[in-house]
Formats: sequence, C-alpha cells, structure tokens
Amino acid sequence: MWQPAQLPSIAGQLKERGLELDPSQLTDLAGPTMGAIVSLGFCTASFVSPQGLVVTNHHCAYGAIQYNSTAERNLIEQGFLAKSIAEELPGDPNLRVYVTEEIRDVTREIVGKIKPDVGGLARYDAIDAAEKALVKKCEKPGIRCDVYNFHGGYSFQLVRQREIKDVRLVYAPPDAIGKFGGDVDNWMWPRHTGDFSFLRAYVAKDGSSKPYSKDNVPYKPKHFLPVNADGVNAGDYVMVTGYPGRTNRYRLAEETNDAIAWSYPTNIAWYTEILDIVNAAGAKDPGVAVKYASAVASYNNYLKNFRGQLEGLAKADAVVYKTAKEKALTDWLAQAGGTNAALAGDIDALRGVLARQRATRDRDLTLGYLARTGLYSAAYTIYRTASERTKPDMQREAGFQQRDEAKLEGNLKQLERRMDPKVDQQLLTRFAQHYVKLPAAQRVAGLDAWLGTGEVADDAVAQKVAALYAGTKLTDTTERLTWFKASKKDVEASNDTALRFMVALMPDLLALERAKKERQGDELRLRPRFMQAMIAYNQAQGQPVYPDANSSLRVTFGKVQGFKKDGVEFLPFTTGEGIVAKTTGEDPFNTPKSEYDALKSRDYGRYAAKSIGTLPVNFLADLDITGGNSGSPTLDAKGRLVGLAFDGNWDSVSADWIFDKGLTRSIQVDVRYMLWIMDKIDHARNLLDEMGVAP
Amino acid sequence: MWQPAQLPSIAGQLKERGLELDPSQLTDLAGPTMGAIVSLGFCTASFVSPQGLVVTNHHCAYGAIQYNSTAERNLIEQGFLAKSIAEELPGDPNLRVYVTEEIRDVTREIVGKIKPDVGGLARYDAIDAAEKALVKKCEKPGIRCDVYNFHGGYSFQLVRQREIKDVRLVYAPPDAIGKFGGDVDNWMWPRHTGDFSFLRAYVAKDGSSKPYSKDNVPYKPKHFLPVNADGVNAGDYVMVTGYPGRTNRYRLAEETNDAIAWSYPTNIAWYTEILDIVNAAGAKDPGVAVKYASAVASYNNYLKNFRGQLEGLAKADAVVYKTAKEKALTDWLAQAGGTNAALAGDIDALRGVLARQRATRDRDLTLGYLARTGLYSAAYTIYRTASERTKPDMQREAGFQQRDEAKLEGNLKQLERRMDPKVDQQLLTRFAQHYVKLPAAQRVAGLDAWLGTGEVADDAVAQKVAALYAGTKLTDTTERLTWFKASKKDVEASNDTALRFMVALMPDLLALERAKKERQGDELRLRPRFMQAMIAYNQAQGQPVYPDANSSLRVTFGKVQGFKKDGVEFLPFTTGEGIVAKTTGEDPFNTPKSEYDALKSRDYGRYAAKSIGTLPVNFLADLDITGGNSGSPTLDAKGRLVGLAFDGNWDSVSADWIFDKGLTRSIQVDVRYMLWIMDKIDHARNLLDEMGVAP
Repeated sequence: MWQPAQLPSIAGQLKERGLELDPSQLTDLAGPTMGAIVSLGFCTASFVSPQGLVVTNHHCAYGAIQYNSTAERNLIEQGFLAKSIAEELPGDPNLRVYVTEEIRDVTREIVGKIKPDVGGLARYDAIDAAEKALVKKCEKPGIRCDVYNFHGGYSFQLVRQREIKDVRLVYAPPDAIGKFGGDVDNWMWPRHTGDFSFLRAYVAKDGSSKPYSKDNVPYKPKHFLPVNADGVNAGDYVMVTGYPGRTNRYRLAEETNDAIAWSYPTNIAWYTEILDIVNAAGAKDPGVAVKYASAVASYNNYLKNFRGQLEGLAKADAVVYKTAKEKALTDWLAQAGGTNAALAGDIDALRGVLARQRATRDRDLTLGYLARTGLYSAAYTIYRTASERTKPDMQREAGFQQRDEAKLEGNLKQLERRMDPKVDQQLLTRFAQHYVKLPAAQRVAGLDAWLGTGEVADDAVAQKVAALYAGTKLTDTTERLTWFKASKKDVEASNDTALRFMVALMPDLLALERAKKERQGDELRLRPRFMQAMIAYNQAQGQPVYPDANSSLRVTFGKVQGFKKDGVEFLPFTTGEGIVAKTTGEDPFNTPKSEYDALKSRDYGRYAAKSIGTLPVNFLADLDITGGNSGSPTLDAKGRLVGLAFDGNWDSVSADWIFDKGLTRSIQVDVRYMLWIMDKIDHARNLLDEMGVAP
Repeated sequence: MWQPAQLPSIAGQLKERGLELDPSQLTDLAGPTMGAIVSLGFCTASFVSPQGLVVTNHHCAYGAIQYNSTAERNLIEQGFLAKSIAEELPGDPNLRVYVTEEIRDVTREIVGKIKPDVGGLARYDAIDAAEKALVKKCEKPGIRCDVYNFHGGYSFQLVRQREIKDVRLVYAPPDAIGKFGGDVDNWMWPRHTGDFSFLRAYVAKDGSSKPYSKDNVPYKPKHFLPVNADGVNAGDYVMVTGYPGRTNRYRLAEETNDAIAWSYPTNIAWYTEILDIVNAAGAKDPGVAVKYASAVASYNNYLKNFRGQLEGLAKADAVVYKTAKEKALTDWLAQAGGTNAALAGDIDALRGVLARQRATRDRDLTLGYLARTGLYSAAYTIYRTASERTKPDMQREAGFQQRDEAKLEGNLKQLERRMDPKVDQQLLTRFAQHYVKLPAAQRVAGLDAWLGTGEVADDAVAQKVAALYAGTKLTDTTERLTWFKASKKDVEASNDTALRFMVALMPDLLALERAKKERQGDELRLRPRFMQAMIAYNQAQGQPVYPDANSSLRVTFGKVQGFKKDGVEFLPFTTGEGIVAKTTGEDPFNTPKSEYDALKSRDYGRYAAKSIGTLPVNFLADLDITGGNSGSPTLDAKGRLVGLAFDGNWDSVSADWIFDKGLTRSIQVDVRYMLWIMDKIDHARNLLDEMGVAP
C-alpha cells in the first residue's frame, strides 16, 4: 500500500515486475493515470470517458440504486440502464465524487510547535486547531480539503479534492448479477460476481460544483482510463490505485488481543441482534426490506468479516506473533541505545492509555450503538449543530462546521429512505436494554435519569422508549429539516420528546467527549513514538515501511495469480461455465434467464479470453487491498482498465492485521465479463461506445 | 463396479490402464489377491499378514472400539494398541470376518420353475423357498451362504463364505487421527483423515470357526496382501475390491422423484429429531454419549449424505434426465419390436406396484423408526423368534432361522452397550407422537388400540410410552437373554408390558408383512423385465451393463487423480502440512500433540513421497465406490496395498443415482500415512514387523 510519493523510490521494482509506464507518471496526481482515479468517500471509482462516466463496484453504487428503488419499482432486483443522458437518475443526496488535486506533507505545520511532552487535551486541541486552520485556508467552493494522519500522528498530509455533488446513476446490472453469490460467496473463491455499476459526475454549466440540478451538465475530467477489452492473463502485471480505509498492521499485541477477545465477538453479538430485528421486520414488509437492504448487506458483510478475522488471527496465533515482534523491538531499542532506548518508556505509557480506554469500552460501545439509531442521531445532529453554530466557525467541533452542514442536512433528509420508525424504535429499545445492564461505574447520569438506575426490567425500558417515539415528530423528514435550521434556544425550548431527551443528555455526552479527547491527545503523543521505534527497527533491517491504511490514496502492484493450499489449488480465473454450474434459480444463485441462456449457448463473442478459451468472470491477484479499495480500477502494465477490485479471499480478511503474501489475494471482476454483460445481456451499447469499446 | 467374473471380458482395458497382474488372477476368489479380501458384513477389509491381521477403516472398527470403551477408559478418545497378541481385545459379539470362497450363478435354480406371469405372494414364496433350500444345502458349521439378487431379480448368485466369529481389536489410532475433520470434513476434499484400524481373525486350534475363546488362535489365511510402503503417485493405476452396498443407477424416474421429494427430506427431518434428543442426553451424561457415539456418527453421516444427494440430484436435474432416458428406452422398445415391445407394458405395471407402495409409505416409515428403538426391537426379536421356532426350520421366516439365532442373541446382548433406557423411551415417545398424526387410512389397529384413535395429544402418548417402560424388564440384558430362550407360550403369558404390547401388535405386523411380500413378489416379476429392456437397449448401443451394487463383491479400477471445478483444482494428494494448517486444538481438528510436533519437525523418515516431497495423507482416485466399500484395500498395479478407501468427494454422493466420471472421486487414506502414524506416533513396531515393513 504505497503512497504515490513513495513510488519513485521503488521504480526499479515496478519496472522489473512489468510496469510499462514511467513510474513517475503514477506520482503525478493530475497525470493521465492518477487523474482518472476518484474517491466516493467510502469507495474508490474512476473516470472511463471524457463525459464524466464513472465506474465502480455494484456494492458501492448500492446506496444510489437503493435510493431510487421502491417496492413497486425495485431497481435492486431489476437493475437499471439509462439509455440516454436524460434518463440518468440522481444519486442519494450525500453521494459525491472527489477528485484529488494535491497531496502535501503538513507535519511541521501541525505538530511543529507542540512541545514533545505535551499530551492530553492540550495536544488534541493544538492539532485540531492547526488542522482546521489548514483546511479553512485550503477550501473554497467546490474544493474539499482534509488532513490525514499517518502512523497515528507521526506525519500529516493535507489533501485537496474537487468535490462533485451531482452524481447520477447510469447503469447497474440486476442484483442477481451484481451480487451473485451474495453472503454465501462473500470473501470466497471461486467467485462469480458481476460487482460493477456506472455513475456520472455532473457540474454546473460554468464547470463549478453544484448539487443536483436539471441544468447541470456532465463533468469533463482531465483524464479518464482507457479500457483494455482484451483484459489480462495469468502472470500479467496488475496494479490497483485507490483509497484503502484502515489496516491494523502496527497495532500492539494487547490491541490485537482486545480485538480477538472482546471487540470482534462483542460486535458479532450486537450485529446478530440487529439483523434479527431488521430481517424479521423486512420479512413482513417489503418496503421495510428495501429501506434496510443496504444496512443488512453491510452488517452481513461485517459479520462474515469479523468471523474471518477471528479465524485468521487464531490460525496465525496473532497475539503470540505480535508479542514476539514487540519483544524483538524492545530488545533492539535497548541494544540500539541513545534516543531509541527512551522510546521503550513511551511504549509502556501508550499501554497505559490503552488501559484507560479499555476501562469504559462497554459503555462507549453501547453509546455508539444508541447513536446509530435514526431518532437518536437526528436529535443529536440537530441539537449539536445548533449548539456549535453559536461559536465562531473555527471553534466549532470538527464535523459540525459550516463546511459540514450540507452533509449533515443530507443525512437528515436521507433518513426517510433508510429508517422505518417502528424498526428504529425496536433497535433503540434493544440497545437501551443493554445499557441498563452496564455496571454502575460505566453508567451515564443523563441516561439513568431517563431509564432509571440499576438494572431496569426490559419491559420498563421498552415503555420509556415507546414514549420517546410517541412524543416526537423527528421521524418526519420535513420536521427534521425544519429543526435543522432552528437556533439552540429554540431547540432547548422544544416540546419534542426526542429533542428534550437530547438536550438533557448533551452535558454528559460533552463531558465524555472531553475525556475521550484527553485520551486521544495522549495517544497522539505516544503512538508516533512507538511508530518511530518501529520504523527505526525496520530500517535497521533494511525493510521499508508503508503506513497503515488511513483512507488516503495508495498504489499496490503485483500480478494475476491464484494460490495453493494443501490438496487444492485456487486458479486465477473463474468462467461463464462456473456461473451455470452454481445457478440454482434461488437467491443468491438466481442467474437472470437471459444471462443463463447466453452462457449455455456460449455466446461470448469477442469477450472470451484466448488463454482460457472461454469467458473470464472474476480473477485473483496478489494485490494488497482492504475496505475502501472497493471499486478501485485494476490496471494493466500500460495503465488501462482490466477489472475492478471488489473483495479478497477468505485468507485476506485477517491480512488487515498480519499480511501473508502466499495466501492473500484480491478478487477482481474481469473487464471482459463487465463488457459482455453490457453488450450481450443489457444492451448498453451507448456506454460501450462512450468508452470506445468497439462492437 | 465389475463382478469378478466379468473381468476377463475387460482384460484388454485393464492391461491398457496399467494392471500388471494377469486379470484372470482377479477372478480367482481363492487366489493371491481376491483371497485376501474379506467382508465385515457392513464394511470391507483385507488380510495383511499370515497371522490373520486385518486392516480396515477406523470407522468400520468403531463398533469394536466403542464396545471396549467406557467413560473411564475411552478407547475412542485415547486409541488402542495391543503390544502383543495377548493384549488384543474381543470385538463386539456380532463382529465377523467373512472370507468369500465361492460365487455361483443360481438364477435357474431360483426362478427356472416359476411361470413368467406368476407374481405376488406366489412368486415371493417360491423364490424365498428356493433361496432357503440353496442356503441350507450350502451351509455347514463355520460356513455362511447367501443368495444375492442382481438387477432386482434378473439373476441370482449363491455366495459361500467362511464365517470367522472371533474378531479382536488390535490397533486403532485415537479419534483425533482416525476421525480427524469429523462431520465438518466428511465427504469433503481436501481431507486429512487417518481412517484405519487393525483387527485380527481368530479360530479354534483345529482351524474351525468358534466364538471368542481364550483358547482360540490367530487364523492363518491362504493369502494376504503385500504392503507397498512406497505407495502410489498421481496418474498411477489403482483398483479397489470390496463390497459396495447399494446404488440406484437403474431406478425409474418416478423413484428418483420420490427420493427427492419425499424420502430424503423426510428422513432428514426424522434424523434431525433423533440427533436432537440423543445429543441433548449425551451432553448431560458422558456414559450416554459413549453408548450413542456410533449411532450419532452414523446419523450425521447419513444426514450429510442425504443433503448431498439432494444437492447433486438437483444440480443434475435428475428427474428430467431419467425421464428422458426412460422415454428413449420406451421409444427404442417400440421400434425394436418383437418381445421387446411387450416389455413396455411390464414397465407400466411396475409403476403400478410403486404406486401401491407409495400409498402407505408414511405408515411404513413410522413403523420402521418404531422398530429401531431398543425396547421395541428387543420385544419383537424375542416374540418373533419364539413364534418362528414353532415351525420347521425351512418354513421359518428369513432372518429368524436357526442360522440367525446367534446373531439375534448377539443383538439383544449388545443393546446394553448401545441403549440408554431413558433415551430409548424419549425416542419411542417421539416416534409414537408422529404415528398418531398419520391419516386414518394409514393407521394400524394394534397401535390404535394402545395409543387411541384419531390424533392423540403428545402428553397422552408420552404417558402410554412411560407406562410401557415402567412395566418392562427388557431394558435389562439378563432379562432379554432369558426371554430369548423362552417358548412362544411363555412369552404370550408374560406380564412384561413390552412383551404384552408386542404380542397384541404382532397379528397386525404379520398382516402388513404379508401385504409387503405380495407387492415384492410383483416387483420381483416386473423389475427384471425393466432391467431386461435396459440391458437390451444398452447392448444395442454397445454399452456394457454392470449391475447396481447389492453388497456383493466387486472390482473397480482407475487411476490416482484429482478433479477440476471452475476456478479451483482439487489436487490428488493432501500432506502432513495440511494437518498442521487445519489444526485448531478443538474437535474435530484436535491433532494429538505427539503427531503435531512430529509434523512440525517434518519427521517423515522413509514415508515421505518423492513425487510431492512430503508426507502424503489422503489421495483421490476415480474409483467407483459407495457405502460398504469402506475399509476396502486400494491396490496398485501389482495388487499391493497402497491405501484404504474410506469416503468419496461431495460430488460422489449423488453418484449412487447418476455417475459423473469427471467429478466423482473416491478418497483413500495413504498407506504411507498409516505406516508413519504406526511407526513414529504410536510405535506399533510389532505390527509393522508382522506386515514385513522394514524400519
């Protein structure tokens, strides 16, 4: 997961592996390759035409598809193709395309003036203020700037992005193609998922970034990716550029142990409860099912992921492995002497911060789940924003500044498509029932005042929550959006039960937030020391260090290849015949009839790969990706689009913690399968022409 | 699945595939190869030393291991090795080794005098009488004879076997090796199961067959298999000789449909209920768990098998496939004319018989499950045997003749190790609760008299069954064995509730038995006509026909090879490293520490295979086997032991109905893994020396 700026230093390696571009082209963010790569915020995507056509994963466009779906006109099930620009549908209000224009190291500007021993709130606030100032200076209409923290505060980068606010749904295959194999096949190989969709970026006629408007016109990117309709073969060079979200490869042994012993199992239990509630409601009402489809997909994905993490971490004996690594580091620090020796004490101090965090983790987790319910989050957003508005913008809490208000408002609006009040009430009830089982030391006065002290009977909790929902109008979109404009005083004077609840609770929440910042400030002082030690230790052994993923732009390169386990070899390509073999007619193996018939008749046209003599569907590569990389273009040696990364194999799940080169594989949807579906099944000739794919 | 007598006709094919023996050697049942193959009744085994040492699967020796296990001294868990002849343990009372001495076609003697149009009871009784007469004439002390029916009555063979009654447990690895992977890996590849154990056949000093006695001595077989400690490589010729139990490749389309739509799903539901009851009881009491361990393993195996059958049959679209085949047959019969044309009518008549059977299948299934409970089966065995004893031996019902009494008595004795009265009562209660839900037309007067007519409340049924168990002593072994000697009159005069229940029910059971024989007689007339048509049709297309498996001796040949699916290739061998990778420390992946350490240090000695550079564990071959083949020796081109067949891959499950050459694979435990375990882990040098395996 190399930062683009690191690429020249490994130019020899890139050339040797087969890259035919000049590596320096990949460091130029405005250049022909990197200029075409964009972020959706939560996924990666890329421009594939001069008219702002964007390709990404089906599961990344899922929100936009769902936003346009109703029980009557279910685009998730049916798929969607705009036969012309005019037919393209507005995406969900918060859907964005971010085009990165500049990445600049700002470490000195952020922490240069903070004394080394300053931790706690002082460090937190100093960094926060410096970040806000840099962002403020950088942003202007249509430009979004963010500061990224590398190695837990060891270095910082300012990223400037053009923010395109009108993003429309152009084409999505039906779920039975885009999500073929569903949760059963998720993280599995062999795989046969057509996980691709198309969006389009729109701007005002003058080129400025504007929210959805009929008058907007397609955005003309400086660069777009050429499509290599012939794809790649086994052994070929490939690379993925994108925005990997988070890895934990430099976490301490005890943090790994926390994940294994507490975090994954606890969240598995909560997610399972949530899914039970949501699925039961969805089974009774297709409208509810549509509203929660995206959440259910996400929860299921995480559930399987967490289980895979636990399995992989157990197999790798991760805590033993990490403990040994830490001991080797400590031994080396002692032996290296000088400034290094002092770092050992900082690592111990970091452990102390982690212990403080551990002491209230059950409370923090419970509050986190409460905050995810629609009603709680709406009330919180409304009252917190109103409160922050009383301050000068630079002093407002990050996330509640002027620059954030459009997104916050979008969230409040969008709730109508994603929340059913009855289901929301059930969820909040369940979470509150968990809350009242917390030990006294982890209770929150404001919640106890509402629910009662000590352990409260489930029924009593349910009644309190029912009263909350009975006396609020925030389940109504107009009401939410009206309140979002209200002043702090007006909110505090409201009779709405949810707002009154939030007004009463807020002092406690702010106190907890302050305590958290205090801890984070200490961590921001100490984790960079640990990473400084790690980097020095690795350098002493000639091993380069790339930072843990942090949603910033990265490049990973490798080749198309399968992997071997005892008694079984996983081949690099799956084929059209494999779809036929998996088809049962029942979800998630319900291949559409038109596709099934075309596969049976082997009507592959130009899309069959000569090397395997048939239609390739998905392929494996040894690329280092993680969540956030979804939708990333997979590029060949010449920088042409040959597929989209959308998943990893089962062994890759725990690669977030420990990377095993022999077993970790990314899974790509092959460009030939995408084009074949578009050409033969969905007749998207308009898009093929736009991308320059000849008939 | 060739009959040995068919081999000379395919000698060319055998030679071409690589057989280095004279094929005629394999038709000589008393010859060097076939003379070493034996049956255990339910599994296959083979002699591997001049001292009657027998090798078979661990799961075939499971009954003997379990019989010698208690909660305190659990040989299932610990494994067992007799360091000398004196330490060998008697197997369960019904454990037998059958050495086949002669196979003779007796079709003319069985059906030669029955007029073609005679069906029903007349045909059934005529065949039954002829079979009994042949068996009577053939049997003498120590010799067991049986008539096998091929193609549903198209031809018959008389098989004469030496019956060895003293079979002892010599060596079994612990469950964690012998059943490694358990139900999770069952029918799966990659596989790493050490599914092998050793028994020894004992006879009286004069060479005659005697039940267990201290004075018995090891049996000296005429032939035993040489061991090839170098094993086989990918592509090598291999063959399996053994006793496959049953295949359904010539069943009608509607019988296939019955299996899919009724038989498999219904039995899955019943087995699941049984397992719920037995597992719950076993979880509370380890003694109960030991008693039902064998039954639980068997039920789980069948459950997974049934699900595999359903999956495979659905994938193969079996009913459509069979219907098309049947139509092709019918078309050919009409076109072929002459005697063939008349056969079409017989096939229709066969369908009529099947319809009669279908009408009462729920009742018959329910009665079948009732008869499986310990108490019901004990009462039935006692009363039926006493009743049959009042007739001349040749008129006694098959299974209740003098020749069967020792086995029946053994069954009654063995119940003490396999039945817990409380669990047995729960099972019988559950089955009876199902019975009272049958429609009136399928009810049995004798059971209704006991349980009541119409639908009876579950509680009321439970009370009736409780009274049955409260008033019986048949749950006591001595009591059962005493009653087994009693006369019909004595049984009828008994106050034992279970015997009174059975005496009252018997007239109904006999009437049902008669109706079944009537139907079977019709089937014995008509199914051979269908098979006659099938054979003629296949011959017309130059395709040879081997009969469906019927527990008679067969030979299958092929080569060591894996198989391919889309995106994945299953390799022919698994290795020691694969065991390490699968090991979790928890059942069923709890590799013993001694083995784990030896694998980690790659202490493979002479047992590593040069071709793969490590220790082979299991291997795949394209051999056509099914249940009953378990324990069969896998032989190389020279007829030497190179492994034991113990399972098939998932795709092989439904091969019982439709055989797919490309995907069906047998799974063998590799002789090198067996020898390595014996040598390095369990130090069974005595047995290795006995088999002539040098250190």
